[in-house]
Amino acid sequence: MDNLIYAMPAMGIVALLYVAWKSAWVSKQEVGTEKMARIADNIAVGAMAFLKAEYKVLAIFVVAVAALLAFKGASEANSSPLVALSFVVGAVCSALAGYLGMRVATKANVRTTNAARTSLGKALEVAFGGGSVMGLGVVGLGVLGLSLLFILYANLFGLQDENQVATVLNVLAGFSLGASSIALFARVGGGIYTKAADVGADLVGKVEAGIPEDHPLNPATIADNVGDNVGDVAGMGADLFESYVGSIIGTMVLGAVFVPGFMELNPESTWLGLGAVMLPLALAAVGILVSIFGTFFVKVKDGGNPHTALNIGEFGSAGVMVVISYFIITYFLPEAWSFDGTDYSANGVFFATLAGLIAGLGIGKITEYYTGTGTPPVMSIVRQSLTGSATNIIAGLGVGMMSTAIPVILIAAAILVAHHFAGLYGIAIAAVGMLANTGIQLAVDAYGPISDNAGGIAEMADLPKEVRQRTDKLDAVGNTTAAIGKGFAIGSAALTALALFAAFMQQANVGMINIAEPIVMAGLLIGAMLPFVFSALSMNAVGRAAMAMIEEVRRQFKEIPALGAALEVMRKNDGKEQKDWSTEDQAIFDAADGTPEYDKCVEISTKASIKEMVFPGLLAVVVPVLVGFIAGPQMLGGLLAGVTSAGVLMAIFQSNAGGAWDNAKKMFEEGVEINGEMYYKGSEAHKATVVGDTVGDPFKDTSGPSLNILLKLMSVVALVIAPSIALDDVPMEEAAIEDKKIEIEVVETSQSESVATFSASAE
Amino acid sequence: MDNLIYAMPAMGIVALLYVAWKSAWVSKQEVGTEKMARIADNIAVGAMAFLKAEYKVLAIFVVAVAALLAFKGASEANSSPLVALSFVVGAVCSALAGYLGMRVATKANVRTTNAARTSLGKALEVAFGGGSVMGLGVVGLGVLGLSLLFILYANLFGLQDENQVATVLNVLAGFSLGASSIALFARVGGGIYTKAADVGADLVGKVEAGIPEDHPLNPATIADNVGDNVGDVAGMGADLFESYVGSIIGTMVLGAVFVPGFMELNPESTWLGLGAVMLPLALAAVGILVSIFGTFFVKVKDGGNPHTALNIGEFGSAGVMVVISYFIITYFLPEAWSFDGTDYSANGVFFATLAGLIAGLGIGKITEYYTGTGTPPVMSIVRQSLTGSATNIIAGLGVGMMSTAIPVILIAAAILVAHHFAGLYGIAIAAVGMLANTGIQLAVDAYGPISDNAGGIAEMADLPKEVRQRTDKLDAVGNTTAAIGKGFAIGSAALTALALFAAFMQQANVGMINIAEPIVMAGLLIGAMLPFVFSALSMNAVGRAAMAMIEEVRRQFKEIPALGAALEVMRKNDGKEQKDWSTEDQAIFDAADGTPEYDKCVEISTKASIKEMVFPGLLAVVVPVLVGFIAGPQMLGGLLAGVTSAGVLMAIFQSNAGGAWDNAKKMFEEGVEINGEMYYKGSEAHKATVVGDTVGDPFKDTSGPSLNILLKLMSVVALVIAPSIALDDVPMEEAAIEDKKIEIEVVETSQSESVATFSASAE
Repeated sequence: MDNLIYAMPAMGIVALLYVAWKSAWVSKQEVGTEKMARIADNIAVGAMAFLKAEYKVLAIFVVAVAALLAFKGASEANSSPLVALSFVVGAVCSALAGYLGMRVATKANVRTTNAARTSLGKALEVAFGGGSVMGLGVVGLGVLGLSLLFILYANLFGLQDENQVATVLNVLAGFSLGASSIALFARVGGGIYTKAADVGADLVGKVEAGIPEDHPLNPATIADNVGDNVGDVAGMGADLFESYVGSIIGTMVLGAVFVPGFMELNPESTWLGLGAVMLPLALAAVGILVSIFGTFFVKVKDGGNPHTALNIGEFGSAGVMVVISYFIITYFLPEAWSFDGTDYSANGVFFATLAGLIAGLGIGKITEYYTGTGTPPVMSIVRQSLTGSATNIIAGLGVGMMSTAIPVILIAAAILVAHHFAGLYGIAIAAVGMLANTGIQLAVDAYGPISDNAGGIAEMADLPKEVRQRTDKLDAVGNTTAAIGKGFAIGSAALTALALFAAFMQQANVGMINIAEPIVMAGLLIGAMLPFVFSALSMNAVGRAAMAMIEEVRRQFKEIPALGAALEVMRKNDGKEQKDWSTEDQAIFDAADGTPEYDKCVEISTKASIKEMVFPGLLAVVVPVLVGFIAGPQMLGGLLAGVTSAGVLMAIFQSNAGGAWDNAKKMFEEGVEINGEMYYKGSEAHKATVVGDTVGDPFKDTSGPSLNILLKLMSVVALVIAPSIALDDVPMEEAAIEDKKIEIEVVETSQSESVATFSASAE
Repeated sequence: MDNLIYAMPAMGIVALLYVAWKSAWVSKQEVGTEKMARIADNIAVGAMAFLKAEYKVLAIFVVAVAALLAFKGASEANSSPLVALSFVVGAVCSALAGYLGMRVATKANVRTTNAARTSLGKALEVAFGGGSVMGLGVVGLGVLGLSLLFILYANLFGLQDENQVATVLNVLAGFSLGASSIALFARVGGGIYTKAADVGADLVGKVEAGIPEDHPLNPATIADNVGDNVGDVAGMGADLFESYVGSIIGTMVLGAVFVPGFMELNPESTWLGLGAVMLPLALAAVGILVSIFGTFFVKVKDGGNPHTALNIGEFGSAGVMVVISYFIITYFLPEAWSFDGTDYSANGVFFATLAGLIAGLGIGKITEYYTGTGTPPVMSIVRQSLTGSATNIIAGLGVGMMSTAIPVILIAAAILVAHHFAGLYGIAIAAVGMLANTGIQLAVDAYGPISDNAGGIAEMADLPKEVRQRTDKLDAVGNTTAAIGKGFAIGSAALTALALFAAFMQQANVGMINIAEPIVMAGLLIGAMLPFVFSALSMNAVGRAAMAMIEEVRRQFKEIPALGAALEVMRKNDGKEQKDWSTEDQAIFDAADGTPEYDKCVEISTKASIKEMVFPGLLAVVVPVLVGFIAGPQMLGGLLAGVTSAGVLMAIFQSNAGGAWDNAKKMFEEGVEINGEMYYKGSEAHKATVVGDTVGDPFKDTSGPSLNILLKLMSVVALVIAPSIALDDVPMEEAAIEDKKIEIEVVETSQSESVATFSASAE
């Protein structure tokens, strides 16, 4: 094995060193007033309590599945204990990435607030610093974990021929399974937590008691801020970790078919013989450097625009990555070759990568169009809000459904273009191309919730208005830039699911899956049903958890005398500045400070979300196993196709409807002109948009994003069980290449510049 | 040709004679007071105005498509002008069915009100009489049109060998295309009309002006009642007409493969040689008699339960139909035979029919469970309404999504079971089995909106409360029994779409559609997107049309002085019985009688719905044509699979969410106990459910049911263009049977009781 392989874990370590350095820098920033420190501490303690409770449950799940994986293999393949090992490592890396991101986020939030007391630029630096720890932590752990396991298995099984490579990759796939299952639970659990707390704080606090959701007297306010961290930071981190890892592994598996040909071509170098397998890992490793490089460009002077700064970092590094990709691809792949009757070329693979990037960018832009402030679709919701919440809801549902059209067409086009240029491998590498920049992409995404949290702390700590205005500005920019990230997330999910699907068919020895077969059609229908049921489960879970929260808040308002008295005082002085209150009223109000039992609310949200995440999570794992073993790989193939198609649609629909409702509400809060009249916060129309926003919350933060994971997780589960349900009982290593005439004809290689022709046959 | 074929049109004529007799009977019933007559007249005039406007637009569409169909064929098949003829006849029959149903419904409504002044039993008789005219009109025109065209084409082309039969059926398929396209426009147009009027009447009338939606001073009230007729009666009639016709033709086409074998077996009888082709038509024809028979059992004594009466009619005739089906099937089919390596038997075909029936019934029962008053899912919506409209909406969406699970599993099971017993033909005949009873099924469905209308008239005409109570009781029963009808509608739509899909693959010479092919996957994704976009289009259309209605109602309230004054008086005397008002107030109120300009509202709803139905309707026709001609039959196949799977899901989700919201609202209107407290109409929770109901209206009455048609229409369009896009440029008649080794081995025939063995080879 070429020593160059060790460059991969080295890059992972570079990322983690960056994480350590940046974490220390964030920690060194000042916290601010004593009150701010106390609030931040409450949030941090709550967030860690949730993570601890969650990881306890997940540990049981991981141990159980690992045991199943290890024992199942006794009869089938002696590599199974190692699949279990990969699974455990994948799960641990995912959990670790979530932990790292959350720890820094709960430090960065209050420090961002404090920085916002002096300048916008400084606040951006702190918030983005926190985000970049999350981003680099995810890619660092991904590349490090994958490459170390690869090296381990390469030493155990060897990489001398295609069978050995197939074994190594099959064992490695467990890593993706570990990452995906943790991701689904984290997304669902975090999503339920954050929305239950949010809805609870909103409905009782704002609507019933008339106090803002971030007001210190609202007992659910800490839980609400904890939710931003566990849902939007830790949940999103686990989500992107699995996308990243899944697309890399899917591409490696599909690249394995080229191994025999490439090996004959490069008899001296295992490294280049494995070119198509190594390529995705190499792109990811170099992507780490590019991301770190990009983070240094995210800076803004006072009066400058944070949006521009983020765009420079994001698009700048994307541009750099495209150029570098070209060289990496031509280094790893021959200039042209043919396999199984199809012609391939390094340029073709590069174009496939470009197709993925363009589609991802396009989906992001469309997402911005359908959910951005002031765009025609959001304005249509704003106008329909004048006639009440019912028309607001109808309009939002319409916008969400309509917004699926162009993204789906872009995904379909990317599939066709990538396939045209580089076959199934092209589809897989297109997803890798989208995700190579995950480091900085995720930094930009995670900076949003940190700013959001910073704003909450400013409110709770009674800081001057301009502080909140600065954090609000950061938050607003974060919402827009996040749209691009969503585009990549959904686009790569669809392509990765497809790549995993193709890998599944290879491993299960299924030549084709004919929709006209009733068993496939039945699978397709049931598969299409799962995203609906899954969404229903997570939405109902949010509903139930929010109910529990509401009851707890009501109980506190009733049973804590100081709190009740303070609320009474607030109601009496409604509309008056606090400094104009009578001294008695002020005294009553101040006496309530600290009386709400925040920890009770945190506990309720934690317990409810942990309980509610289990069933939908298990469903995603159990259904493909049941269908695969009972009805066979044909129906399972139909099921995966159904889950993928309906899942992509439901994910886009729900995310965009939620985003559009959210911004329609924000437009009223800033003041909006309709037919020549101005409408503001507090108007009847604004109240209608609050309803829409509340409905959109679980859509966009719980069920929508969970579906991205669902469709990949089910494909990964299918891939892992594929050898056990393969047709004709062909052992898995052979199944992958059996029945496939391998003919590699290299027209011209970049290494030799001479014309080589040969053909290999993999008996 | 056997003379027995003439029994088919004869049955159609019997149905139409029943329609004429029952129509006359309904017309003979008394109308009631002069005021009732005037209101009913307004509704009837409005309904006919809509139908006239709609048919004008559709006439242009029909002529254009017919011309295209006729000319396209010049180069390809000389039978194309006849496809155009079938198309026109299909469209005209569909339109005629809608017209007949609507005319009697607008007579039956007021006569039901009048009958309800004396007794519940009498009212049921009149309402159900009106419904049965619609039901028998649909099946009568379907069987008559189809069988007459079949006889015509049989005389033109002959039925002597399988090629001739294929030509006849190919030409006949235009009938289904005509029925489907009219149905889609009628469903979408009617759906937009009824919901725009309903939402408009509700929002301005009830919410802004504080008067009930059926109040005579509400200018949108007539439009609202017209809407019930054009949407729920005419729209539903066209819908079921196309289901009925589509399932019959799909089965006939799939049955054609057995023709050569059956002909050799029955050289004397074209009739039995065509057994598998004739069977669906024969089942439908006999179904007419059974339906007529069933209508005589729908009777109730005073104090009796109309629910029981309808159940006896519906389930009684279903039971009778099952028994008769067995004899018809064994008459038309040999006892056992084998084709293309698969064994078939008459018993197997019968079991396939049973599987369809059971699945349809099961889906109906599940629909009842998820949408019925007082069931756990609806109660969960009721409870979540206590915390406002946002949680009401979330709960309803959750219930709707969750409700897809079991119906989809039942459909998948029906597909597998029917296929197990009788192959693709089994899947098709299962749909026919569900729809054989359409006559009485539709009578039960159409009776609901008639009763609803009768209630509205009672309200507007100021009749005593017990009249409204009686019509409400009829209406409530109608809602429950309609659930069963919905089950059959969605189940048969899925199975019919599948049968048409199989027929398309035959005609397009596509041996298989492999999901692993990127072109198919791209088609699948785009196909799955269409139901979302289609729903969005129709919901946005409802939103826009409702806006126009709201503005018109507001204008009238402002600009008609007498009306404004009367509203003022009503507000002043809020809560007082009218007899306790002062004489002056009474005079002002009476002066406003008749001043609202109902016709303006009717005109707005008509224009808006006609305008808005065009784009979504065209989309459904144009997309498969474009995809088929540009990207080929493989992608079109993927597209159809995507439309079918996502369409079935979205249809169930939207219909059931809408139904559940509706009944959650009704539970508050009747008074409901939650945690020991009673809640009634007017409570905050009730207001929350009004929001849910308004959102659910376009779901369950516009976009949801339109999807049933969408997925079949797209399959029919694909089927019609299949010969033009067939692979290998094989002419269509040959394509249908080419490459298919036909081996028919009859193990035992019901005619001879001896064992016959033979094999036939096509070409």
